[in-house]
Amino acid sequence: MSRLRIDQDHPKLVIEHVYPTVDRGRHPVKRMVGDVCHVGADIYGAGHDLLAGCVRYRNDAARSWRSVPLRYDYDSDRWHGEFVLDRIGRWRFRIESWIDEFGTWSDWLRKKLDAGQDISLELLEGAELIRRGMPHAPATARKGLASAAALLADTQATLRSRTKLALSQELERLMGGVVDPRDITQSDREYPVVVDRERARFAAWYEMFPRSQGTEPGKPSTFAQAERRLPRLAELGFDVIYLPPIHPIGHTHRKGSNNALVARPGDPGSPWAIGSEAGGHTAIAPELGTLTDFEHFVRTAESLGLEVALDYALQCSPDHPWVAEHPDWFMIRPDGSIRYAENPPKKYEDIYPLDFWCKDRENLWRASKEIIEFWVDHGVKTFRVDNPHTKPLAFWEWMISDVKNRHPDVVFLAEAFTRPKRMWGIAKLGFTQSYTHFTWKNSSHELRELMTQLHKTELVEYFRGNLFVNTPDILHEYLQRGGRPAFRVRLLLAATLSPLYGVYSGFELCENEPREQGSEEYMNSEKYEVRVRNWEAPGNINDDIQRLNHIRRDNPALQSQGNLEFSDTDNEQLLCYSRTRWGNDLLIVANLDPHHAQAGSVRIPLGRLGLNDNEPYHVEDLLTGERYTWRGEANYVHLDPQHRVGHVLRIVR
Amino acid sequence: MSRLRIDQDHPKLVIEHVYPTVDRGRHPVKRMVGDVCHVGADIYGAGHDLLAGCVRYRNDAARSWRSVPLRYDYDSDRWHGEFVLDRIGRWRFRIESWIDEFGTWSDWLRKKLDAGQDISLELLEGAELIRRGMPHAPATARKGLASAAALLADTQATLRSRTKLALSQELERLMGGVVDPRDITQSDREYPVVVDRERARFAAWYEMFPRSQGTEPGKPSTFAQAERRLPRLAELGFDVIYLPPIHPIGHTHRKGSNNALVARPGDPGSPWAIGSEAGGHTAIAPELGTLTDFEHFVRTAESLGLEVALDYALQCSPDHPWVAEHPDWFMIRPDGSIRYAENPPKKYEDIYPLDFWCKDRENLWRASKEIIEFWVDHGVKTFRVDNPHTKPLAFWEWMISDVKNRHPDVVFLAEAFTRPKRMWGIAKLGFTQSYTHFTWKNSSHELRELMTQLHKTELVEYFRGNLFVNTPDILHEYLQRGGRPAFRVRLLLAATLSPLYGVYSGFELCENEPREQGSEEYMNSEKYEVRVRNWEAPGNINDDIQRLNHIRRDNPALQSQGNLEFSDTDNEQLLCYSRTRWGNDLLIVANLDPHHAQAGSVRIPLGRLGLNDNEPYHVEDLLTGERYTWRGEANYVHLDPQHRVGHVLRIVR
Repeated sequence: MSRLRIDQDHPKLVIEHVYPTVDRGRHPVKRMVGDVCHVGADIYGAGHDLLAGCVRYRNDAARSWRSVPLRYDYDSDRWHGEFVLDRIGRWRFRIESWIDEFGTWSDWLRKKLDAGQDISLELLEGAELIRRGMPHAPATARKGLASAAALLADTQATLRSRTKLALSQELERLMGGVVDPRDITQSDREYPVVVDRERARFAAWYEMFPRSQGTEPGKPSTFAQAERRLPRLAELGFDVIYLPPIHPIGHTHRKGSNNALVARPGDPGSPWAIGSEAGGHTAIAPELGTLTDFEHFVRTAESLGLEVALDYALQCSPDHPWVAEHPDWFMIRPDGSIRYAENPPKKYEDIYPLDFWCKDRENLWRASKEIIEFWVDHGVKTFRVDNPHTKPLAFWEWMISDVKNRHPDVVFLAEAFTRPKRMWGIAKLGFTQSYTHFTWKNSSHELRELMTQLHKTELVEYFRGNLFVNTPDILHEYLQRGGRPAFRVRLLLAATLSPLYGVYSGFELCENEPREQGSEEYMNSEKYEVRVRNWEAPGNINDDIQRLNHIRRDNPALQSQGNLEFSDTDNEQLLCYSRTRWGNDLLIVANLDPHHAQAGSVRIPLGRLGLNDNEPYHVEDLLTGERYTWRGEANYVHLDPQHRVGHVLRIVR
Repeated sequence: MSRLRIDQDHPKLVIEHVYPTVDRGRHPVKRMVGDVCHVGADIYGAGHDLLAGCVRYRNDAARSWRSVPLRYDYDSDRWHGEFVLDRIGRWRFRIESWIDEFGTWSDWLRKKLDAGQDISLELLEGAELIRRGMPHAPATARKGLASAAALLADTQATLRSRTKLALSQELERLMGGVVDPRDITQSDREYPVVVDRERARFAAWYEMFPRSQGTEPGKPSTFAQAERRLPRLAELGFDVIYLPPIHPIGHTHRKGSNNALVARPGDPGSPWAIGSEAGGHTAIAPELGTLTDFEHFVRTAESLGLEVALDYALQCSPDHPWVAEHPDWFMIRPDGSIRYAENPPKKYEDIYPLDFWCKDRENLWRASKEIIEFWVDHGVKTFRVDNPHTKPLAFWEWMISDVKNRHPDVVFLAEAFTRPKRMWGIAKLGFTQSYTHFTWKNSSHELRELMTQLHKTELVEYFRGNLFVNTPDILHEYLQRGGRPAFRVRLLLAATLSPLYGVYSGFELCENEPREQGSEEYMNSEKYEVRVRNWEAPGNINDDIQRLNHIRRDNPALQSQGNLEFSDTDNEQLLCYSRTRWGNDLLIVANLDPHHAQAGSVRIPLGRLGLNDNEPYHVEDLLTGERYTWRGEANYVHLDPQHRVGHVLRIVR
């Protein structure tokens, strides 16, 4: 016979399907400061007694738990409660529920009274209930409860006075929430919530190589020179300036222009080949300046409302100090050499991967974390993490949690271009944001599928997609062939499909020359050489960038995730979607065909936009200021990409 | 700084979203003996190494674990494996996965060879890999591995011979599945599976009061008389004969005809008022006969292929022996009386509920379980559980698991007419089958909603709905008003929508008189009096019953859950659905309107039924034997309920 220890093993109630959770609490859900945390749960027990419950919650840095009552919703057959996440950091909540004995007693008493039944026994039972509850009531309530119990049990007193007391709001108030802690059923565990600052969820990123911000061909620019671009980038409405690695670059097997295996003299090398005699991940490449110069760059950015993001690429050039100091942190081959990076048959001899499972792993993991702490101490709060999926998943969970315990404002962006499950799994481990496959999603079907995942699935709880329109590694064929209209429409999509998006410099100039036919690499990529550009060259799309970034700031509907719905169109080249939040209702239509004008009918989700079936409504195109009066749920759109690639329509109230 | 103990806390791989599970393994999934258990999981780690894995599984009564390899499916980005559940009882499985170092090494070796690269270091690394794997290989493989390692490392041997060995199938076979147990990542837990016998999932139930099987008005029949009906019930194709409580009935506050508060002399009382001086839950009501008579009834049923189900109603009449023996198992009121059942303002003074949380609860729970064990010892394997939601959830989980540990063939049917979450939750606790709200679902919309839940949601894993067309408590208005056609169509629906369905006697005679207008109670309900009927009276629908039960037995598509799809029709009164399994493809069309002929077009799911768009196909109506030739995906149907209420069409190959 199986063990029967009723009290310990068998709670009276079941609490299940708790929301919000990821993998039943294994991982935190992500929220932004100021968000209301809506909590829900299925709760039931046996019998017909009424239940009561609460959410208990706290910020990890707070002294004590707070509590908010749960209420039952009949339609969803669920219990709900909410609280405000009023500071950043890690929070946790749990659910408590119990049988509401007093409430059940009141309810029965009322029904029996209404039916004219004798309630003298019920009054005595009520007195007993109150007496049992007293030790668990607040001290201030005990005296009142004692006298209530005495009167209810006093068979000398009039039935009328006892009944009146039994049904009084005063007694209900005194007994509210009174429960023997042993009778409380708690949810299986505490559920974690990570609360980030606003920029973790809403920001426009700009990626630039600090060495390519000069004016003299072939001559690398310094931080001091790169700093001069910041006012214009602030004016364009960017929030985050992301710099590829700024550390000393190795010499051994340095790559030349267009990824040539042998560098020519003067070739600057790839910033991702980190480390030389000048230092490793905590040093500044001498050609860019000094740590002081970098700090100046960060402060100038800050004064303009910009934030600087650094690259966190855990790999070493053969010249990195760690190679000599800790050869055991790398993989040693049978001939004593260190294994370089490879993806057979490709070799990356300028890079040594770290062996995160080496014997001395604890020191390696700590040293890796200290890189982040070093830059945090120098004013950096945002890190773009290079290829996190090639480092242990456990490392990320430990490192990010440890850093954020002390610096809850730090943001990590994961660059994990990998299979979906792993990509999502990495986000669960603590990354604040993640790159997506947006760059490769150009058809209506592909875009709908990706954005439906981001906005309409459980990913909303933990995966914040940062839609980069291009990267130094990805110049998509769509941009190579579509000319300026392609750049404009991709910008429009990224900026209005997601609260987080990014642009890698050169995009605004519609740079679209691949290294060779069929390649997504840029010709003369600045990964391997210094580039000089006229950032306001004719044909640039800075106006689009500036307008869209300001539209994003003005419209709350563009600042969150989970509030996007696609609308049907009768032309596959027209993509239509609505974004709604706080009464701010937008309808976006884009022509995905950069070559031809496209026209068709789009279906307006009137109900969702708060519109009436029969009345005309006004929409304003936020890109141009034009206003249209529309009526009904089908409206005609014509978009010539040479002229305009889309509409961002705001419903005018 | 948070603790960093890499080995203990940080497995290398993540195993998540394991299927099949209920609440991540908190509750068992349910399967039938002979089922293939399809297992799936998302598995990933860091880096680009190949992975390998297996499902380990066992029946709890088996000595050891068995194992089957997992294979990766690129499209679903998931790992899959399967095994056969070849015996009833409780099973468990877990998932194991590891980095396939040898496979990764072979893969790289091949790619480098293809690219003409030097592989001499790789051969030495391969030798090292094999040496490390040897202690974990089967003893029979070790000699072969030792010599392979020696040859790979032998720089005196020819590169050609070493390479040939490295790439040999023989070496691949020897190294297959070789892994250091410390490098295995296991799923969080073992996942339980409960495997039942066939009748747990596929059966037609018939409910009858043994006392109402006589021929003399007002005179209760005995088991001996009731037994005479069994051959005909077997002929009609029923599988389970369910008897309301067969125990002695209390005298105190006995209910009279039509639930009258005071019984007249000779009124037999409700069988659910269990217990008198003649005994309690393990006794037989004297008017029905003896325990020996009951056993004879069970054996006769068995010889006809029928199984007897008993009612398990954990409540007592005031005359039950437990009331005197264990007054502390009941709720005592302040005046010393025992609390009777009530639902204010309604009182049920003939019934005392048990107090399952009383001080002596362990003895009460054990005594309650012993009732089941008593009847199991007397040949009963199936129990219909009365109102399980009014007894502790924990009791069910403990009791059912304990009983099934020793008697895995026992079946429990839950009669929990309550809110959805609790109804489903109760099924998770171990009930084999559950009543549903089918009786109240009569419109197309209601039926589609309910059956979609049963067939197309997670309920498939643990909730087996038994669709009763009526019960002694529920004579739905649809039956009251719809006449014989209503009975016929409800029978057709129940028998073809679910592998489990049930009929309460009187239904076959189209009994439809309610106690009063607006009531779902039967007039002169046999809950309170003895009824005598002519079971073959004119107008009966025994032919329908017999035909449908035989169609069910002949068609595997009607024997499982999860294989139903609704098809659209252009008339709301026509419900159309397909059932498919093992090449047995059925299309059912029913006219939900018992009053009028209805006609319309139904959409045939050609692809699902394996039919071609352009070619004609033949369907046979299994109810009538008629054959039709149809073509295309829209076909016209006309159903006059006076003549026929529906089609059960089999696609003829």
